[in-house]
Amino acid sequence: MQLQNDHRSYFMIRATIIGASGYSGAELLRLLVPRNDVEIVQLVAASSAGKKVTELYPAFAETVDLSYESFETARFEHVDVVFVALPSGEGMKIVPGLLNSVDKVIDLGGDFRLQSDSVYKEFYKHEHTAQHLLSEAVYGLPELNANDIVHAKLVANPGCYPTSIILALLPALKSGLIRPDGIVMNSLSGVSGAGRSASLELSFTEVNENIRAYKIGSHQHIPEIQAVLERATGTQISFSFIPHLVPITRGIYTTIHASLDAAVSEQEVHQLYDAFYREAPFVRIKQQIPQIKDVVRTNFCDIGITILPRTKQLVLTSVIDNLVKGAAGQAIQNMNIMFRLPEETGLK
Amino acid sequence: MQLQNDHRSYFMIRATIIGASGYSGAELLRLLVPRNDVEIVQLVAASSAGKKVTELYPAFAETVDLSYESFETARFEHVDVVFVALPSGEGMKIVPGLLNSVDKVIDLGGDFRLQSDSVYKEFYKHEHTAQHLLSEAVYGLPELNANDIVHAKLVANPGCYPTSIILALLPALKSGLIRPDGIVMNSLSGVSGAGRSASLELSFTEVNENIRAYKIGSHQHIPEIQAVLERATGTQISFSFIPHLVPITRGIYTTIHASLDAAVSEQEVHQLYDAFYREAPFVRIKQQIPQIKDVVRTNFCDIGITILPRTKQLVLTSVIDNLVKGAAGQAIQNMNIMFRLPEETGLK
Amino acid sequence: MQLQNDHRSYFMIRATIIGASGYSGAELLRLLVPRNDVEIVQLVAASSAGKKVTELYPAFAETVDLSYESFETARFEHVDVVFVALPSGEGMKIVPGLLNSVDKVIDLGGDFRLQSDSVYKEFYKHEHTAQHLLSEAVYGLPELNANDIVHAKLVANPGCYPTSIILALLPALKSGLIRPDGIVMNSLSGVSGAGRSASLELSFTEVNENIRAYKIGSHQHIPEIQAVLERATGTQISFSFIPHLVPITRGIYTTIHASLDAAVSEQEVHQLYDAFYREAPFVRIKQQIPQIKDVVRTNFCDIGITILPRTKQLVLTSVIDNLVKGAAGQAIQNMNIMFRLPEETGLK
Amino acid sequence: MQLQNDHRSYFMIRATIIGASGYSGAELLRLLVPRNDVEIVQLVAASSAGKKVTELYPAFAETVDLSYESFETARFEHVDVVFVALPSGEGMKIVPGLLNSVDKVIDLGGDFRLQSDSVYKEFYKHEHTAQHLLSEAVYGLPELNANDIVHAKLVANPGCYPTSIILALLPALKSGLIRPDGIVMNSLSGVSGAGRSASLELSFTEVNENIRAYKIGSHQHIPEIQAVLERATGTQISFSFIPHLVPITRGIYTTIHASLDAAVSEQEVHQLYDAFYREAPFVRIKQQIPQIKDVVRTNFCDIGITILPRTKQLVLTSVIDNLVKGAAGQAIQNMNIMFRLPEETGLK
Repeated sequence: MQLQNDHRSYFMIRATIIGASGYSGAELLRLLVPRNDVEIVQLVAASSAGKKVTELYPAFAETVDLSYESFETARFEHVDVVFVALPSGEGMKIVPGLLNSVDKVIDLGGDFRLQSDSVYKEFYKHEHTAQHLLSEAVYGLPELNANDIVHAKLVANPGCYPTSIILALLPALKSGLIRPDGIVMNSLSGVSGAGRSASLELSFTEVNENIRAYKIGSHQHIPEIQAVLERATGTQISFSFIPHLVPITRGIYTTIHASLDAAVSEQEVHQLYDAFYREAPFVRIKQQIPQIKDVVRTNFCDIGITILPRTKQLVLTSVIDNLVKGAAGQAIQNMNIMFRLPEETGLK
Repeated sequence: MQLQNDHRSYFMIRATIIGASGYSGAELLRLLVPRNDVEIVQLVAASSAGKKVTELYPAFAETVDLSYESFETARFEHVDVVFVALPSGEGMKIVPGLLNSVDKVIDLGGDFRLQSDSVYKEFYKHEHTAQHLLSEAVYGLPELNANDIVHAKLVANPGCYPTSIILALLPALKSGLIRPDGIVMNSLSGVSGAGRSASLELSFTEVNENIRAYKIGSHQHIPEIQAVLERATGTQISFSFIPHLVPITRGIYTTIHASLDAAVSEQEVHQLYDAFYREAPFVRIKQQIPQIKDVVRTNFCDIGITILPRTKQLVLTSVIDNLVKGAAGQAIQNMNIMFRLPEETGLK
Repeated sequence: MQLQNDHRSYFMIRATIIGASGYSGAELLRLLVPRNDVEIVQLVAASSAGKKVTELYPAFAETVDLSYESFETARFEHVDVVFVALPSGEGMKIVPGLLNSVDKVIDLGGDFRLQSDSVYKEFYKHEHTAQHLLSEAVYGLPELNANDIVHAKLVANPGCYPTSIILALLPALKSGLIRPDGIVMNSLSGVSGAGRSASLELSFTEVNENIRAYKIGSHQHIPEIQAVLERATGTQISFSFIPHLVPITRGIYTTIHASLDAAVSEQEVHQLYDAFYREAPFVRIKQQIPQIKDVVRTNFCDIGITILPRTKQLVLTSVIDNLVKGAAGQAIQNMNIMFRLPEETGLK
Repeated sequence: MQLQNDHRSYFMIRATIIGASGYSGAELLRLLVPRNDVEIVQLVAASSAGKKVTELYPAFAETVDLSYESFETARFEHVDVVFVALPSGEGMKIVPGLLNSVDKVIDLGGDFRLQSDSVYKEFYKHEHTAQHLLSEAVYGLPELNANDIVHAKLVANPGCYPTSIILALLPALKSGLIRPDGIVMNSLSGVSGAGRSASLELSFTEVNENIRAYKIGSHQHIPEIQAVLERATGTQISFSFIPHLVPITRGIYTTIHASLDAAVSEQEVHQLYDAFYREAPFVRIKQQIPQIKDVVRTNFCDIGITILPRTKQLVLTSVIDNLVKGAAGQAIQNMNIMFRLPEETGLK
């Protein structure tokens, strides 16, 4: 019998992951399990309820001895934070209820990233059923919103593409360096970004030795990019965003073209970016062109800067790991901020 | 109005493919369409009936203008040969009926490769429902059975693994060069071998940067290898066969260990193999260790020979393209033989 | 002794490949060997002189029984056409001499694609030593220049990126559909485009699971794209082109943004493109977004068309196989035209 | 000016890496840098002397601010341990000198793994020049030799293939479960195992979509496997080992066949293995067939056990990350033991 008073456990963050069996859920586990200030109280995964984590992810053998359970059996009384890693459309069904019993919710899906339910319906192709939370949710991009995130009850974790794009554009747009219209964004995504599911389109034979663009002009991250950048800069912007699927497991590569509105040197832009992100531990401004392998399995966003004198354009290249800075890592960065911990805790 | 008598079309082979929407079906198309002595009469694919081939395989744009239809609408009166490219268990449902109206049927599935229905049930996990055809079917490995294939009504096209293994072992076993027991066969297969289907296990994210063995001791190709080799050699053999899934799209790599029963040099084994396959246009005995890329998209089987003096073992390595020599190419080689054409017609 | 008069061989094209050991050289072999109207007279490859083709490319076993030789031993008296597949800077050293003894030369390198030696020096970083041929060479893009190619002595085979870009842009630019400035071109290339050479940067470990842009603003294909499009349209154009290296073996994926200068529907643009390429056997205008796997190992260029109404932009996506339509296939298409054969001979 | 006495730094391990620019060197850095009980004193890399680590490995930006230097400028007075990560043949040139000034040396190359200089010469193809150290070096497989490693001055870190093989075989061989002859070992290796170098054979275009066996019967790991297993079991063993190169970056997959010498159930073998490795934190005995992705970037070795009743064989499958348990991770595990730290320090 153990009688020791566990007074010192007051600092423990008691976390629950809902949708824990997907790739983002597994990545949350990978990053949270080594921490001694976080306790995983329960893992909710409807389709895998009753299974051990190691049945789905044998890599966790001898490090994670947890099982998934159904939402119905989960208890939230003493839970400090819930990560919701469900497909868009599913999160909004449970988040309103969760907020009654839990102080802090971080939604990794797309349901609370937009403020307009009509735009949501246009791009997500179904009605929003929790509109009252849209204005309350805080967009969880720490490099932009840390001071709001700290007070948030509901954080909408950014999309993977928007993370790579917004971080690259913020300094240039906020400084007026570039014109806010005519911006062209090309992004290449690894396959894990499409989630863990049985799909012919994502089978190895279809994806390997292949590349294809998709959802040209209609991707649901378009209004997210637009709204966040317009709110951040107070200016209307216009742009095109085209995602491509490429045969890698993890990573997003983004190449952005924008028209320079000022005569600047590459060096001056570097200085501007360095200054802008001086306090951001996860943004690295590179002297060379970034590459995906430098950020895989990290929470870094690497940004490259090139000026094209012939066309007076600024070319920004940025890379992230879609499962880390594009999902689970950023969610944990948000959690750290919400608990007033150093944002890099457990992420470096 | 066209009045020309098409007398000269008597030589045309009128072919139908059932299960035409899978990878083997598409590979049959790729190989048959350029031929001017074969006419594709109809393509049957239940799940894709009504769709154009180019909807599933846009690569065929401007070269294939055909649509899939259902089995119910297909007509077989003037069909000369039917390729059945259905999953095991499906072929046996339709082949008995087909043989009433069609002279020649080539089944690319596993339903008619074994002669014992009880062994079939043990490895394929369901009853055989067309046992009466098991003894009639001819095992369609041309390098072994051409003289029977020419007279066959029903050809059972060999499995991909057995093709790579039997071709490698036949000369050594038939010549008594090696002991018939204790043979170890390791095979590595590309993912297209698992067929075209939505499956989490075959998704890019699961397969890429990964390798795993599977069905150790229980793969359905084990009794096929055993029966064919024993019939061909008149000797009982004993072996282990272990398949592995590797992240490539096409190809099988097989490495075989057998104990030498005679004192021979590598050069003598080479001569034995060269002689054995002198008339086989698709078997190449290599001086170097074979590699998969040399046979991809071809009907070749490359075989490498090494003697290990320390352990008195013969090591055979063999490579094929699982969709060509392991499926569609071999089926067409069989068709050529059944119509008394040179076996390499349209395959080189 | 064979006394038969070979009168009927008058139609044979006697071809030589210089730089035959690289990937483009091997692709020329793959495409030319099956033809019965082309005879490969000799293969020149300095670094591999004396070796059999099958030592470098075992895939050719039993189909190609040729050896490489040095330039010094090659004879050009009865050669009808020479393919020069050397790195840029090497071709110009031998082409002037070749033209003394050979009627038709097709250079797959970059040495004769530009008309200005100063621009050549700026982008290729060395002097041009055969300037007198720059104005004589015909740019070998058949869809643009067939009527000049037919009379050419020296054809400069286009670069792989320019092929995918120019074919996509020609109809829109020539018709005045888009503005000639502010065009943004993003291209993704497979690794075979970098040639066959020992290089840390191109090693599997560096390229796999990675993506990186390179030569932003300085790629040698920039002036080629510019000059060809300006000559073809009579208008000055301005654009940005950014190449990326992606982990696939073959293929180029190009995504182009241009500003519409007219109010048109996607359907009208489709009609325009269909009409423009009605006689082009290798350009396919797609209703869906193209993907690389549809053109791999073919001479096709697939083009996709999307209009973005929000930004009034035309998005063009185009795919080719960099070794076929981007190199060897296009070279053979040019050869066919130069010998007044149907341009698709041996390529479909 | 800082006057604080750094008394508490007595526990710091001052480490140097020689050959630090290769993949194993970089992996050592990745694993050592986060530790607060290890100080990297200097990084030696002849070919990259003067360069910053981040020039070769940009991924280390903002976490590693070190440069490579030449061996000549390196100082070893206050160095506690040196990791030598040089190609075989290079290590033996410097290790004798190093041992004069440094207490502990861990060689990741092959120079001190064998005890016989004649066998070394036979398989490594050059003379051994430091024979006197062969008997002194301790083979650094902690699961076998921890009690010797703790006292060693020179540890020979095992080869990647031998690690995956010996760990799988040790329990079965030591217990007499299997016959010591006729063992067949097939291993598949990722490309990083071949090191960081410019090589046509290892280029993406050659490796991708390809598989090939190599060095059949002549690989330098053969005598290492033989000697270590014979010493550990006191029995002569005979086996065949065949390595294959497969298109993945990291990982080794090993499949071993051995003849059972006793009538046992799979469950009994599992119990034997579980007991054998009860105290080994990095060996996991699996109920399922192992797969590479479960061990990538970890120091784990996963082992699968299957009995084939038909042939009375034991099939062992084992997987490791060749750069971690097969190189840098194991080297650090050895270092931990040499400094009497828990062996998993910094590795879990």
